[in-house]
This record gives sequence, structure tokens and C-alpha cells, in this order.
Amino acid sequence: MTAPAIDLIGVDGDDTLWHNEAYFRLSEARFAELLSPWADTDTLTERLLATERSNLDHYGYGAKAFVLSMVETALDVTDRRVSGAVVGELLALGKQILAQPVELLDGVNATLPVLAEIAPLVLITKGDLIHQDAKVAGSGLGDHFSGVEIVSEKDVDTYRRVLAQYGVAPARFVMVGNSVRSDVLPVLELGGAAVHVPIEHGWVHEHADLPAGARCCEAEGFRDVPRCVRDVAAR
Amino acid sequence: MTAPAIDLIGVDGDDTLWHNEAYFRLSEARFAELLSPWADTDTLTERLLATERSNLDHYGYGAKAFVLSMVETALDVTDRRVSGAVVGELLALGKQILAQPVELLDGVNATLPVLAEIAPLVLITKGDLIHQDAKVAGSGLGDHFSGVEIVSEKDVDTYRRVLAQYGVAPARFVMVGNSVRSDVLPVLELGGAAVHVPIEHGWVHEHADLPAGARCCEAEGFRDVPRCVRDVAAR
Repeated sequence: MTAPAIDLIGVDGDDTLWHNEAYFRLSEARFAELLSPWADTDTLTERLLATERSNLDHYGYGAKAFVLSMVETALDVTDRRVSGAVVGELLALGKQILAQPVELLDGVNATLPVLAEIAPLVLITKGDLIHQDAKVAGSGLGDHFSGVEIVSEKDVDTYRRVLAQYGVAPARFVMVGNSVRSDVLPVLELGGAAVHVPIEHGWVHEHADLPAGARCCEAEGFRDVPRCVRDVAAR
Repeated sequence: MTAPAIDLIGVDGDDTLWHNEAYFRLSEARFAELLSPWADTDTLTERLLATERSNLDHYGYGAKAFVLSMVETALDVTDRRVSGAVVGELLALGKQILAQPVELLDGVNATLPVLAEIAPLVLITKGDLIHQDAKVAGSGLGDHFSGVEIVSEKDVDTYRRVLAQYGVAPARFVMVGNSVRSDVLPVLELGGAAVHVPIEHGWVHEHADLPAGARCCEAEGFRDVPRCVRDVAAR
């Protein structure tokens, strides 16, 4: 078997290497419970998502942005009559997310060394800078990576900049991640390849359809990623 | 005159290249005004600083961290009786900071090209990732820099990591910035040189004394930075 023509493998962090969304979904449920005297769960969830989206340009991604959007939604839904006690609970939810120990996803520990034998790995992740730094440290996975890039958005420009920095041609790059929107589509657009590792309950904001026939592969869990990388590299 | 033995010049962003603290100080004054029925200005400022410090490990630096600490302090000071209207005002203050257009400090535009002739420049800044990205873009200064490093803390380890990434020996690196604590002391400890460009009303958290006799120089405004860089490079 010839070595795949890949010089660098990008790997996403949240919900690719470790659990993340689940903590946000739990906080969202608690948010709906706290505000239940004012509106039903569906309305609250919808309003919160709308607030998060409208704040994205200014707040970006991550737990601090999420808490600020929860507080803003609580003020809106209650016509500013929400109690200080509830606002205090919302801040506490954010601190819980930030203090959550890192839990690796199934197969990650065993599979990363295999992946690192194919090509050098770079972690490319978005969210709160300090929280992502803490998660990388807490994951114990840092040694597998040649570099860590914490970015504010994962679009074509971001990937172009990172690849230029590492001196790697897009055609010789594979990105591995759970988000079609952030980990797959921009990399394909740039001329790279991608491996999609779906999670069960992704954030609706990140949903997008996988393009057919492109240089991308859908992995069945993280253990299946090396097969997929070799597969797209050969195309 | 021989060329200074410097391979890389690091430049801080907030309050070195552009105004920053002033917006936080204005928000702090407004915070004290909003909470004035509950406590006097000195008490409120002190309590806010204490909250910011205790949240630093989890929230890091920047506008989102600042707003969350303002809300938390408001809850504490009022025993959770703060009104939703006031909480809404605090969120609005944060959005104002984030939406503030970038205002360059005096002499920056004229002096950066001079500095870039001495050695390549790298912007090393801490704070909200998305906000710092926006400020770099809004400053129009991006082209002067070989790289931009947005970091969660500016300590010895951070500078060591950045210098390793750029392949530069600490002895051949000068850091330019307004904070003795973040821009000067860790770089001197690592064996580099530093140029301190003081601002008038710095955040008390960043205060520290400048060490005597070390490879550092105090610039009188940004226009004086090239002289200082040449001065410390020759030592």
C-alpha cells in the first residue's frame, strides 16, 4: 500500500475528540425549566437559538457567549421581569460548563496515535480561547499534535490562513470533524479533503447536508477515521 | 550603525496600538451609576475588580468576561434583587464595547512601518478571540504583521511557545507593550528584551513595577518605540 498523499491532518476538538454539546443541551433544558412560568420549552428553545444567532457576530462561539444569550433571552421572554435568582442560576450554569472535566469520545485515545502515523496532526477548534486551552490541557492529547489553532470561525479564509502558516497545499490536507458546516464544506471548497464523524445530537446551527461524490468520507465513529483518511487521500 | 541583533518584534494590541481600557473604564462608571442605590462607587469598583479576579481562571480576559462579572457583582451587591432593567443595561454596555470602532493610539500609524524595518513584527494580544480578530481587521494594521497570536494569558510559557513556533531565540526577541505584568516581566524572565509604552489609566490588575537595569526601556509614546528597540537590542 502506498502512503497517502497527505501532509497534514486537521482534527476538530468539541464533539470530535471530547463531549461538548451534551453540556450545552443540559443547560438549555435547565434554562427552559427556570423560565417555564413564562413560556413553554419549544418557545424558549427557539428564542434562545434566535438570540444566539443574532449575537454570533459579536459574541462568537463558546460558553460565555451562550450564558450571555441565555440571560438576554430570559430578559426578553419575561419583559425584563426575570428575578435576580434566575439570572444567578444562569451564570452558575455557564460556570458549570466551563468547569466540566474533559471527557474523551469513544475510540479517540486509541486512534489518535494511528492517525498521527499517517501525517502530522493539528487541532483546529473554535470557541472560548481560555476554555479551549483548558480543554486541550485537560484532554491529555496535546502531545499527539504538532500545533493547536483556536479560531473564531471555521470558514474558507480560516483554513487558507492555517494551511499557509503550516506550508501545506489544500489538496494535501484532510480535516476531521463532526460539523459538516465547519469541518467539511469550507475545506472541500478550498480543495482539501474531509472526514465527517457525526455525533448524535448536534447543535442545529451546525447542520448541513454532506455533498455527494466529493473528497469526503463519513466515518462510523472515531475508530473508523484512519480508514476514511486513507480513502479520501487516495481519491 | 550596525543592525540590531533582533529577529522578531512582538507588539501588544490593546492600549499599545489602539484604545481599549478607556471603554472599560466608561462602562465601569456606568455600572457604578446603575448600582448607586445599593452601594457607593468605591465599593462597587472594588467588588467588581474582586469578581473579575476570581473569575479570571474560568472567564479569561475581554468584554464578555467583563459583562459576566458586572452581572455577577450586581447580583451580589443587591442580594439578587437587581432589576431586569439594570441587567439589560449591563448586557448593552458589553455590546457597546464589542461594537466600538478601533481607534489607533497616537503615532502608531506612522511608526509601525519604521519598526517593521528593524525586524518582522508579530502581534501578540489577549482577550476575546472574536473581538481581537475584529480589532485587527478594523485597525487596518494587519499588513504590517507577519503573524497574529491571540492568546489566553501572556506568561513565560506563552512567549516560549510563540517563539518556538517562529523559530526565534528569546535573546533575539523584543516585546513592545503597555503592561509591565504581561508584556515586560515574562519576556525578561525568558531572556528577551522589552519596551514598555505606558498608558495613563491602566487596569489595576496589570500594574507592576519595572525592573531596574534589565534589558528593557520605557518609551515616551509609540513614536519613541523604534529608539527603545534599538537601545535594548544593543545591550
